[in-house]
Amino acid sequence: MTEEPKSLPRYMGFPSFFRLPVTEELQGDIAILGVPYDGGVTNRPGARHGPREVRNQSSLIRRYSEVDKLSPFETATVYDAGDIEIANPFSLQEAHADIEAGFARYHRQQIATLAVGGDHSISLPILRAAAAKRGPLGLIHIDAHCDTGDDYLGSRFHHGSPFRRAAEENLIDPKRTIQIGIRGTLSAPDQWEFSYSSGMRVVMIEDVYQRGISAIAEEAKAIVGNEECYLTFDIDSVDPAFAPGTGTPESGGLTSLEALMLLRGLRGVNVISADVVEVSPPFDFAGNTSHLAANVMFEILRLMTAK
Amino acid sequence: MTEEPKSLPRYMGFPSFFRLPVTEELQGDIAILGVPYDGGVTNRPGARHGPREVRNQSSLIRRYSEVDKLSPFETATVYDAGDIEIANPFSLQEAHADIEAGFARYHRQQIATLAVGGDHSISLPILRAAAAKRGPLGLIHIDAHCDTGDDYLGSRFHHGSPFRRAAEENLIDPKRTIQIGIRGTLSAPDQWEFSYSSGMRVVMIEDVYQRGISAIAEEAKAIVGNEECYLTFDIDSVDPAFAPGTGTPESGGLTSLEALMLLRGLRGVNVISADVVEVSPPFDFAGNTSHLAANVMFEILRLMTAK
Amino acid sequence: MTEEPKSLPRYMGFPSFFRLPVTEELQGDIAILGVPYDGGVTNRPGARHGPREVRNQSSLIRRYSEVDKLSPFETATVYDAGDIEIANPFSLQEAHADIEAGFARYHRQQIATLAVGGDHSISLPILRAAAAKRGPLGLIHIDAHCDTGDDYLGSRFHHGSPFRRAAEENLIDPKRTIQIGIRGTLSAPDQWEFSYSSGMRVVMIEDVYQRGISAIAEEAKAIVGNEECYLTFDIDSVDPAFAPGTGTPESGGLTSLEALMLLRGLRGVNVISADVVEVSPPFDFAGNTSHLAANVMFEILRLMTAK
Amino acid sequence: MTEEPKSLPRYMGFPSFFRLPVTEELQGDIAILGVPYDGGVTNRPGARHGPREVRNQSSLIRRYSEVDKLSPFETATVYDAGDIEIANPFSLQEAHADIEAGFARYHRQQIATLAVGGDHSISLPILRAAAAKRGPLGLIHIDAHCDTGDDYLGSRFHHGSPFRRAAEENLIDPKRTIQIGIRGTLSAPDQWEFSYSSGMRVVMIEDVYQRGISAIAEEAKAIVGNEECYLTFDIDSVDPAFAPGTGTPESGGLTSLEALMLLRGLRGVNVISADVVEVSPPFDFAGNTSHLAANVMFEILRLMTAK
Amino acid sequence: MTEEPKSLPRYMGFPSFFRLPVTEELQGDIAILGVPYDGGVTNRPGARHGPREVRNQSSLIRRYSEVDKLSPFETATVYDAGDIEIANPFSLQEAHADIEAGFARYHRQQIATLAVGGDHSISLPILRAAAAKRGPLGLIHIDAHCDTGDDYLGSRFHHGSPFRRAAEENLIDPKRTIQIGIRGTLSAPDQWEFSYSSGMRVVMIEDVYQRGISAIAEEAKAIVGNEECYLTFDIDSVDPAFAPGTGTPESGGLTSLEALMLLRGLRGVNVISADVVEVSPPFDFAGNTSHLAANVMFEILRLMTAK
Amino acid sequence: MTEEPKSLPRYMGFPSFFRLPVTEELQGDIAILGVPYDGGVTNRPGARHGPREVRNQSSLIRRYSEVDKLSPFETATVYDAGDIEIANPFSLQEAHADIEAGFARYHRQQIATLAVGGDHSISLPILRAAAAKRGPLGLIHIDAHCDTGDDYLGSRFHHGSPFRRAAEENLIDPKRTIQIGIRGTLSAPDQWEFSYSSGMRVVMIEDVYQRGISAIAEEAKAIVGNEECYLTFDIDSVDPAFAPGTGTPESGGLTSLEALMLLRGLRGVNVISADVVEVSPPFDFAGNTSHLAANVMFEILRLMTAK
Repeated sequence: MTEEPKSLPRYMGFPSFFRLPVTEELQGDIAILGVPYDGGVTNRPGARHGPREVRNQSSLIRRYSEVDKLSPFETATVYDAGDIEIANPFSLQEAHADIEAGFARYHRQQIATLAVGGDHSISLPILRAAAAKRGPLGLIHIDAHCDTGDDYLGSRFHHGSPFRRAAEENLIDPKRTIQIGIRGTLSAPDQWEFSYSSGMRVVMIEDVYQRGISAIAEEAKAIVGNEECYLTFDIDSVDPAFAPGTGTPESGGLTSLEALMLLRGLRGVNVISADVVEVSPPFDFAGNTSHLAANVMFEILRLMTAK
Repeated sequence: MTEEPKSLPRYMGFPSFFRLPVTEELQGDIAILGVPYDGGVTNRPGARHGPREVRNQSSLIRRYSEVDKLSPFETATVYDAGDIEIANPFSLQEAHADIEAGFARYHRQQIATLAVGGDHSISLPILRAAAAKRGPLGLIHIDAHCDTGDDYLGSRFHHGSPFRRAAEENLIDPKRTIQIGIRGTLSAPDQWEFSYSSGMRVVMIEDVYQRGISAIAEEAKAIVGNEECYLTFDIDSVDPAFAPGTGTPESGGLTSLEALMLLRGLRGVNVISADVVEVSPPFDFAGNTSHLAANVMFEILRLMTAK
Repeated sequence: MTEEPKSLPRYMGFPSFFRLPVTEELQGDIAILGVPYDGGVTNRPGARHGPREVRNQSSLIRRYSEVDKLSPFETATVYDAGDIEIANPFSLQEAHADIEAGFARYHRQQIATLAVGGDHSISLPILRAAAAKRGPLGLIHIDAHCDTGDDYLGSRFHHGSPFRRAAEENLIDPKRTIQIGIRGTLSAPDQWEFSYSSGMRVVMIEDVYQRGISAIAEEAKAIVGNEECYLTFDIDSVDPAFAPGTGTPESGGLTSLEALMLLRGLRGVNVISADVVEVSPPFDFAGNTSHLAANVMFEILRLMTAK
Repeated sequence: MTEEPKSLPRYMGFPSFFRLPVTEELQGDIAILGVPYDGGVTNRPGARHGPREVRNQSSLIRRYSEVDKLSPFETATVYDAGDIEIANPFSLQEAHADIEAGFARYHRQQIATLAVGGDHSISLPILRAAAAKRGPLGLIHIDAHCDTGDDYLGSRFHHGSPFRRAAEENLIDPKRTIQIGIRGTLSAPDQWEFSYSSGMRVVMIEDVYQRGISAIAEEAKAIVGNEECYLTFDIDSVDPAFAPGTGTPESGGLTSLEALMLLRGLRGVNVISADVVEVSPPFDFAGNTSHLAANVMFEILRLMTAK
Repeated sequence: MTEEPKSLPRYMGFPSFFRLPVTEELQGDIAILGVPYDGGVTNRPGARHGPREVRNQSSLIRRYSEVDKLSPFETATVYDAGDIEIANPFSLQEAHADIEAGFARYHRQQIATLAVGGDHSISLPILRAAAAKRGPLGLIHIDAHCDTGDDYLGSRFHHGSPFRRAAEENLIDPKRTIQIGIRGTLSAPDQWEFSYSSGMRVVMIEDVYQRGISAIAEEAKAIVGNEECYLTFDIDSVDPAFAPGTGTPESGGLTSLEALMLLRGLRGVNVISADVVEVSPPFDFAGNTSHLAANVMFEILRLMTAK
Repeated sequence: MTEEPKSLPRYMGFPSFFRLPVTEELQGDIAILGVPYDGGVTNRPGARHGPREVRNQSSLIRRYSEVDKLSPFETATVYDAGDIEIANPFSLQEAHADIEAGFARYHRQQIATLAVGGDHSISLPILRAAAAKRGPLGLIHIDAHCDTGDDYLGSRFHHGSPFRRAAEENLIDPKRTIQIGIRGTLSAPDQWEFSYSSGMRVVMIEDVYQRGISAIAEEAKAIVGNEECYLTFDIDSVDPAFAPGTGTPESGGLTSLEALMLLRGLRGVNVISADVVEVSPPFDFAGNTSHLAANVMFEILRLMTAK
């Protein structure tokens, strides 16, 4: 299932994720799934178009890493499992139920998943599927926002609250949670209070600048330890210059290089599943944001296959 | 309230609609209201950003028409009444309730409204407010799509069904309804069957091309007659070359000139309220679509103030 | 093979052409093939990216025509046959050989093809495959340029010469050839002399404006008659306002509506195969050109399945 | 001086206007001059960048017209005379003086000029140079606006007043003036009153739509007669879909084809000099507006060399 | 006056600066004023559109800083005072007089101002208003250019000379002036000689890279001391990747994060008023530059309210 | 030949490289040549349009460096020698022959060249011209890719192989070759094996991040030594945020500042000729990539004139 794609120019042929085989069957080691849903956003929409454009740009990614000449596609069977089917996108809760069910199919079979959003609210139903029976997971959360807010605009669930809900539902362990890249402005001084009170480690972007990527990666490894963890990467962790195509941009973020080096620095962490979210193609330029998202996915696959 | 704005360059100052006074008070003749809601779309989102960008571009519009040197702002008091406040944008039905309540404030005081969407699903709650106590209204509907579909993706309400629901709720009279500019492709042969079976007049874009704008305008006037009618203008009635900033583009539409001439040709129709919908700025270029929408609004205001 | 795609929002799932089944097997009635090759352009490149973006935008097209409520997917089995594999894109002649071989697979089995370019030079190898054993075909050629030029920049083959070569190779019958939408400027007064001297009918854009679409369509039908013909649609026949994403734009072209009506007006013509070429996504805006190309393909499929 | 450029791809080499020879010497028949000045705009700036981008796009224009296979470059010596040097762009009146002086160099030697703006205020100093000693000229003015306004924002001179000033200075004859394509909205009912009171013929865009291009061209010829006239083409006469790159867009304009056919329909008119103005590249997409401007210039050169 | 805006999605409602109250009355502590004037630019225009787009993007900024959970809107009354009315934008000197008068209204009442340009020439008239009666101010100047040039293109005043003129007029104290981020190329070796000869401290971008943001911030504080100073932030200090929307881009600038950290590092400085200039929306992408400008303003407000 | 351009705004006049004199004569010290050829790309095309847009943006560059107040135009005669004429762009090998011949004209006269591509395959024919009779040259190669691949897609020559071929042809000395900025993904683990086996020094981007620009520059100087070397700068060495306009983007690259500082750090190296390649304007935004390329060229000219 992981045979090499034919040696054709990369603009030819169907743009499955990384030009991998496509199948809806439950098999192999890692299923990559699109989650074209943005009903949880509170600001600029468009992340529903993320999976398709990330697939498109991912065909520019080749099979081996320049860093160590290894390929995540050699040590594991990875495939494009298509998009989660969301039958009623008008209801956030029905959509979340569809997402949970879609991921549960894989997790029940011990197949790891790498999701591509969609807005950040999707991490909650994915975690419900991924953490079922596994007890609370560690969490590495790379983002401009803690996303541990409470109800907003009349809804308990939205793209600013998934990790509060996940902790409340015992899907993640706040003590083994680190949030990296946090910055920007707040609606209230205590908007992310839950992160602090529950024991999550919050790493502000200024810390990253001052201490350097390696130190942050080491701290993340220390916090999540050797046990199972989930990795969630919000593309708005990266500065809007590198990733303009997103719904809630925050000036002053990671560079692309820092983001990729941070992920590489996590080698050894036991990432059982992951997601990359908040890519909004209508605000992107020349596919840059989707292209970066594909590179981020490649690094995450390397983490998932290295353990 | 309709004093001339100061003679300043049009890029200066606050971009209220047409640089009109802004007030939340119930007063005057025509309230222009933004409806920043796109939870009813089935495809590309972004119309939530429509009101702000249409306001922005509307400052390029001056006060008098070149056609007859008349101004809608001289014969009526028109003002910018701000945006409808939608407290819970995650629930289509709560949002529609907020929209209905927001418009009912004005209609209860006999103040006419001109709404700027937002997606086409907003026409239904507006019609509920506008048609209350007035019996069914005539309808002039300029659009690429009939929007008389049935349930879709698990929802009775969405941007493809407002006029079926409006007819079912007796808010509009199908016999006094004309739909102009219809084209494109259908999910099912009978997607718009309700239009035909209920007695609406459906004018395809090919008819417009063959018969000319004047003939279509005359037919519209004959169908709606002298009694009260509502006018709804979906910007996707216009070809994507002129109006790229929309969520469901259809090739082969009206030109901007045809759209403006069609509206001018309706002079004499008793338009009691109206809306302009489906402007999606994330897909627009250089503000062209919002600018056209502002011109369309100017013509609609001329119709509303000429009767 | 032509079962309905699931009722999902159109931004979900894989963007095969029109969300049709994908197969590399030789079967059914009409194979749609991408030809991601632009080595024949003499000006702005990028048409190699055409097939992918046209597939992407084609998912906005539904199954039935608004005009007559018929679907080309009900009366014939149509499928996405993937992209032609071009092993050496650095050699125009090797690339053309690959294209010819790729199409010959289908034509040998009497399977009709609809190609999506790619630059206009690809029509020659396709015609070699399509006209083999069938004698010269009639040709309906919609374009801003006659493309009957001679050698240019040291090459006998390029995107300005395919129909001269096709006539010289007896693949098309100049007497049953009509070229519609011709305009612009010429490198030499006799640049398209071959069209005239060989007996092709050249319809300038001014003729279209003066005589109207119906008259031109009627003339085209009279010229190609009832026998087999090929249809080639260069997207630059349409004005750059409607189709900016192309390599050799010419001001003053068809509108999208005129292009679609022209194709509908050809009903009854015996189109055995066809192509749509010169879509260059790097110069496009918001997918408008690719979206129009998908609509054009839909109309061509209707012609091919109506005969 | 009008030798053919080498047969090289059109993206190669220096982009002089139409790849013509460049010289600052006073010679030949027609000098094409850039006027990179936009200090007279009252709204969106950027026309100062017009000459460079029009030069860039003009290299896509070939030497012969498809319509009659004639070339303006064969019957006259035409060259690129560079840009007018404006020493102090901060002072509108000094800039206008520089422009007048720059053009007077050519007109004193009976060399015709074709100017590329720059904003429309530049027509006044050009007319001062062109009409000197020649008595008032006829004027064919294609535009969305009459540009016969009075003082605005404290200035007697700006891009909305050149033709009032030109008439007052006896540079043009209002009775032999026709303004075509007029539309949009007005700051005051009598904004263009001068046009009417002075006897200019004002042709609204609706007239163009109703009567057709040929009738308008014939009327224009009747009005300006056989005597010398000046032609001024504001790119905003064309609809923003075709020409988005301009500072004062007005919805509902000419199509590109109509604009080109209108110019062709003027054949026989004695155009002694001309300008094309208001191309603002910062608002353009993919060079479309500049490309259209280059096509318009080609048609104007054909008029100037046909007389 | 600083009540919380209602808890509505940030794309709803009028985009005043930071969704603050709007008033033309002289009151409160800090008035934010737009200065839509770009008549002082020597290259690409468009900064006249800056205030409107910065207002638009500023609605994405929330009320509290993530860094210390403090809000500038709690410790001071801050409001949107609208745009300075520039009655004659055609005359640089009249425009400057209007700007000076507009700001003097506030400074006479001891109301601090935060201006949003507009081109950098506006700093001079603002300083005339701000420094009146206060003796020369210290200056923190963050920019790619020193802007201490002499007459250029016939004008004593332009966007490359404000701080030379300000020093000459004794509005600023060169000894208490620091210019940070300087880079690029020069028209003459001594273009910024005035900076050096007058005693200003010039910090090149390479210094920032080598010494780090904190060291530069400390040096700035040492230079301006505890006395009153003015802060001027030219958005072109930031690299064009982060801030493409500007008129005189210079490769190799600050990152957004460095710019924000530099401002935060200035805490303790006595900033009495400030400006953010040279945001040119026509060259921007997806509002990124305006969004960064709004973040910069937020940090400046924090400095102004912390002292 | 190096007189100052007149003191005109930089948007006026012809955009030769750096507004330098244009001549096809063999003279002076350094000829800047455009190479508008992209037939060697394996992915996204468009670099054929590079020379024209780099010329355009280069007019924003002034004459002296801010760093040391020196000008490369004072110590050497530098001029714009136009574009290499490529008579048959359809044949990669004929095109390469034309390029070699074009550069050989200059090198035979000991005139140094600075080339602007065009894709990276052009470095090979340039090196053939530059290294003729000079024995193998040292090479400083700044790029995301080593470009020492073997045959690909049926061709021995393409933009991924020039430096393998150059070493095989003894044009460069692998022992005196350094490749800086390497990153991304590989088609095969040994894709760049030739670099390692031949003795080139490969500096990964992570090394740059960890060791800093100065250390890398010092190492480069040590490797190439005092003897003659060639410098090749692929714009994709810089991150896509800074240089989106390129055909093979790789996330996580140099910043613009790092690229410029790296070049400055090479002072003392004996650069005899150089190129800047892979600028693809169709994928650029607002000219940023071309503008950066012009700045890079300015620094290279400083290196070439400093030795």
